[in-house]
Amino acid sequence: MRAPIGVFDSGVGGLTVLAALRRHLPHESFLYLGDTARLPYGTKSASTVARYARQTARVLVDRGAKLVVIACNTASAVALEDLAVHLAPLPVLGVIEPGAAAACAASPTGRIAVIGTDSTIRGGAYERAIARRRPEARVLGRPCPLFVALAEEGWCEGPIAEAVAQRYVGDLRRTGDDPEAIDCLVLGCTHFPVLRGAIEAAVGPEVILVDSAETTAKAVHQVLERKGLATDAEGPGDITLLATDGPERFARAGARFLGLPLRPGAVSLVDL
Amino acid sequence: MRAPIGVFDSGVGGLTVLAALRRHLPHESFLYLGDTARLPYGTKSASTVARYARQTARVLVDRGAKLVVIACNTASAVALEDLAVHLAPLPVLGVIEPGAAAACAASPTGRIAVIGTDSTIRGGAYERAIARRRPEARVLGRPCPLFVALAEEGWCEGPIAEAVAQRYVGDLRRTGDDPEAIDCLVLGCTHFPVLRGAIEAAVGPEVILVDSAETTAKAVHQVLERKGLATDAEGPGDITLLATDGPERFARAGARFLGLPLRPGAVSLVDL
Repeated sequence: MRAPIGVFDSGVGGLTVLAALRRHLPHESFLYLGDTARLPYGTKSASTVARYARQTARVLVDRGAKLVVIACNTASAVALEDLAVHLAPLPVLGVIEPGAAAACAASPTGRIAVIGTDSTIRGGAYERAIARRRPEARVLGRPCPLFVALAEEGWCEGPIAEAVAQRYVGDLRRTGDDPEAIDCLVLGCTHFPVLRGAIEAAVGPEVILVDSAETTAKAVHQVLERKGLATDAEGPGDITLLATDGPERFARAGARFLGLPLRPGAVSLVDL
Repeated sequence: MRAPIGVFDSGVGGLTVLAALRRHLPHESFLYLGDTARLPYGTKSASTVARYARQTARVLVDRGAKLVVIACNTASAVALEDLAVHLAPLPVLGVIEPGAAAACAASPTGRIAVIGTDSTIRGGAYERAIARRRPEARVLGRPCPLFVALAEEGWCEGPIAEAVAQRYVGDLRRTGDDPEAIDCLVLGCTHFPVLRGAIEAAVGPEVILVDSAETTAKAVHQVLERKGLATDAEGPGDITLLATDGPERFARAGARFLGLPLRPGAVSLVDL
């Protein structure tokens, strides 16, 4: 069966998750919906985001998605449980649980930092997800909103990206034997993987970076195998890209996050 | 009469216009509404923005506003005419016409640059407003979206703000006698006045900066005088701040744009 994997986000950021999914699952087809008409989700109430998530997921399911990935930290934090019940028995995965699990596995000391948007950090979903797995862990949440704008502008490397990363996370670099120092940094926003180089340069090689796009792709792989949902088709799968507003703008900005060139007409407009 | 002047924007950026209004009109009272539940306006269609503008302006008028200022470039570009008809005979002013008029008056050569968000620059409203007044003018529009994020993060000065300004507008600095060089730069986004120092440092002293917040405040002053709407009260006027979502967040971020400390409870929530 070649039913697509459905992926949604409020905008282009979730395309880093789609990029990771394609690397891990090259034979699968994907259907991506960016709810650009209603972005950002991060400033909206939990009930509004849950309602938007149901509507966007519905489009994916109506088009045959066999599994839904919430490639958005805000919606993963507030809408995953509701959506899983709503779409059952269809599997639904968010980005927070895989990221938290990977951080718990990767961190030797349990001193973990999470960077994300204001709303993700204030909401504390990563802290709770880490605490469930590793109650003794100490989690430092830090909002880094300018990273989103840098990523959308495409200034992903060079002196400005490096200076911003230095200002946000430079103090997390391990020096000497400070027992309080963090040893693991979670990229808790789907925009951030494109800035990985600048962030790595700021925190240094002794801090392990956990990319929730990567870890989510691995989790999707496991669920497909476990549920017998993996495609048996040969050759590369298709990608279908949808947006609820400004498909040309989406294609321009999205190419950077997906890591693929996109034609101006590559993204189709859908109404919700 | 001490009826308030109504001011609205999609968020906190328009508070720079409110700050300029307070400086020019210290005896007036003000009622400001940030439509934070539905920001940003810049990515939405013109008809949606016009509808939102009617709804936000209605709140201001229902609370007694004697004049409405659209302190938002996107809404000024697409909703001013509609709103002026809808609210007539109440005066309605946007930020684009005053900014364009000031640039036309200030520029010796008519070579003018306008910086703003992607949507403001793509929409071309400043270019058209300048062309109506000075058809021979040559206008260079340049989107500078990262300035918005810098302003919201409060990184308004220092090496990062200077590096971003240098990258966006450093090439506009006048060198020698280049006849094509611009001599006037319009801050075509209500977020940008807080970055004025970094922008001035990048373009140098020979480029005249036009701040549409300042020029809009002057235009409001003139309309009040002409229509006999200026207050005759003594002493400083009041400020009432409203937001459609996240009033605490609004108060935190807004203090910087307004140039006044704001208590966490200083902003009231309204439903639209």
